[in-house]
Amino acid sequence: MNTMTDTAAAAAAAGTVADANTAPDFRDELLAAGLLIDTGENGLYGRSQIFEDVLERLNVAITRLGADQQSEVLRFPPAMRRTDFEDSEYLKSFPNLAGTIHSFCGDDLGHRRLLRALDDALTDSDSDDERSDAWMAQQKPTRVVLTPAACYPIYPVMARRGALPAEGRTVDVLSYCFRHEPSLDPGRMQMFRQREYVRLGSAEQVMAFRQMWIDRGSLLVALLQLPVEIDLANDPFFGRGGKIVADSQRAQALKFELLIPIADPRGKTACLSFNYHMEHFGAIWKIVCADGAVAHTGCVGFGMERITLALFRHHGLDVNGWPDEVRALLWGDTEARVAQGLQSLQASAAHTGGGA
Amino acid sequence: MNTMTDTAAAAAAAGTVADANTAPDFRDELLAAGLLIDTGENGLYGRSQIFEDVLERLNVAITRLGADQQSEVLRFPPAMRRTDFEDSEYLKSFPNLAGTIHSFCGDDLGHRRLLRALDDALTDSDSDDERSDAWMAQQKPTRVVLTPAACYPIYPVMARRGALPAEGRTVDVLSYCFRHEPSLDPGRMQMFRQREYVRLGSAEQVMAFRQMWIDRGSLLVALLQLPVEIDLANDPFFGRGGKIVADSQRAQALKFELLIPIADPRGKTACLSFNYHMEHFGAIWKIVCADGAVAHTGCVGFGMERITLALFRHHGLDVNGWPDEVRALLWGDTEARVAQGLQSLQASAAHTGGGA
Repeated sequence: MNTMTDTAAAAAAAGTVADANTAPDFRDELLAAGLLIDTGENGLYGRSQIFEDVLERLNVAITRLGADQQSEVLRFPPAMRRTDFEDSEYLKSFPNLAGTIHSFCGDDLGHRRLLRALDDALTDSDSDDERSDAWMAQQKPTRVVLTPAACYPIYPVMARRGALPAEGRTVDVLSYCFRHEPSLDPGRMQMFRQREYVRLGSAEQVMAFRQMWIDRGSLLVALLQLPVEIDLANDPFFGRGGKIVADSQRAQALKFELLIPIADPRGKTACLSFNYHMEHFGAIWKIVCADGAVAHTGCVGFGMERITLALFRHHGLDVNGWPDEVRALLWGDTEARVAQGLQSLQASAAHTGGGA
Repeated sequence: MNTMTDTAAAAAAAGTVADANTAPDFRDELLAAGLLIDTGENGLYGRSQIFEDVLERLNVAITRLGADQQSEVLRFPPAMRRTDFEDSEYLKSFPNLAGTIHSFCGDDLGHRRLLRALDDALTDSDSDDERSDAWMAQQKPTRVVLTPAACYPIYPVMARRGALPAEGRTVDVLSYCFRHEPSLDPGRMQMFRQREYVRLGSAEQVMAFRQMWIDRGSLLVALLQLPVEIDLANDPFFGRGGKIVADSQRAQALKFELLIPIADPRGKTACLSFNYHMEHFGAIWKIVCADGAVAHTGCVGFGMERITLALFRHHGLDVNGWPDEVRALLWGDTEARVAQGLQSLQASAAHTGGGA
């Protein structure tokens, strides 16, 4: 499973292209079955009780998978402080995907102007798509932005606690994230949840953590009986210089992904990612190790909607028809089954002399 | 418990005023105990595992409380389609609280300009508070806005399904909501979760639903052993005309609230609300009853963070020290205890001839 192929790389590259014309079939099936609820906006869906139940049971399985990690569980709302976001350098790489939050800060007179512009927009437009957004002229930036990835809020928080302990820290986060890339591909939503384990410590600690999670993430996908390939990521860095950054990311093997076919006919979709940030966040927020060195960081990210969609794609829209083993993992004794899987992993690592 | 007093009304009025100078003491205690995590931005906090556990157990209790409602469970992300939001008329009442989402839609050249402006901001500012936001000049409105209240996304969805069945519909929602009102009062967050049951049907169906939930909401708060008063709401409608709208809302008794002291020294905080929208949403989105009449709607909203904070405020920061009955309700046999409470409620309604 841990092999990289050029075809997978090409598929991954294709999978990063937002395109409103791909993959309507599976989307239509999901909407017809009521698992996703159409809001009229591409990439923005309601979720049914069944969809949420699968996602929540998957979340429990991930918790069991990391039960020995002594991680600190933190949950942040889907927004973060704007100055922290600015510091993160996300805008260098993905300015087009970020979402900033704006509010009306005017007075009574401004409010009347806003309502007149809105009224004109409602009166003049024949369709929602043509409606003027002139009323938004008075919207001013607030001090918060939408969270682009679940781990972003934690780095400044960890920095404020002072030097890391000798064993480093592991943090468990989950939040809705925003990316402005409207698409008909249900595997590419504008708002989706990421569960992450984040590691802060020495380069060795972070690299060992990442290898361990590549193994455990692959185990999870195997237990879920989903077809998968691992590959180096090919993130859609912005602009003409973007390809150089992407090539550099690949050359340094900073990010691996587990790719599963979901709905994009041209390729597979990254459902889990394994990231090594080197000293990037440590340097920005001055996070230091016990010995005073700049901390390295890394994380494993689970695309909660994507893995859930992959389950529906490969096992069918009726959860009652899913393979017995998959149902037992999610709705049975999740703890025992995950523990058993982890034991096999350790036994196999001991046998080959590998593993983390 | 179902009495209205002028003092409670005054407290409610005071509780609606955002003020960055109130209630730092309880906030400091929550931060020191690690239950809330400071992000550096007023009203934006991380939550600890214990905080989330209390909130989730509370959520389970609310589910048990509504187990007989045959409600449809839907979960939406914390954003909604902008045109639906525009249609909702929220901007007439609370333009200052809404959050719109903006993204960079420029090219390479624009990106370089953005990064230069950001670089200048980082170089020139001595503190985060003084930092220029000139880089945001190129942010353009997207087609999505932050959800102002958990029920907003469902009305257009329900309208698209055609006429309501004769028994109407009940929908169960939960989402993060955004309100732009930075405050040091932990009971007034910028991002917080609302759980709601929403009723769509005839005026009689909606009014009966609301009375039932006033009783059940009061039961929940009694089971949690929290001090409470019920009162007509005093929402902070915007502008000079706002008082007239607020008076009208009160005169028509459209919204009741359960008020619990949390952190605001000048008053109590609305933790549950019981709303009757009359035909407002039905008319906007053309939701019709089985007989063709415009649907009435109403909802009960549970402020998940606020009730959780009230528990910490009144029972202490250590959940192990909470009253046995409260612990048993949340972490014991929640289903049986809620069912028992509902039976007493029915018995008492039968005895007095009241109730829904």
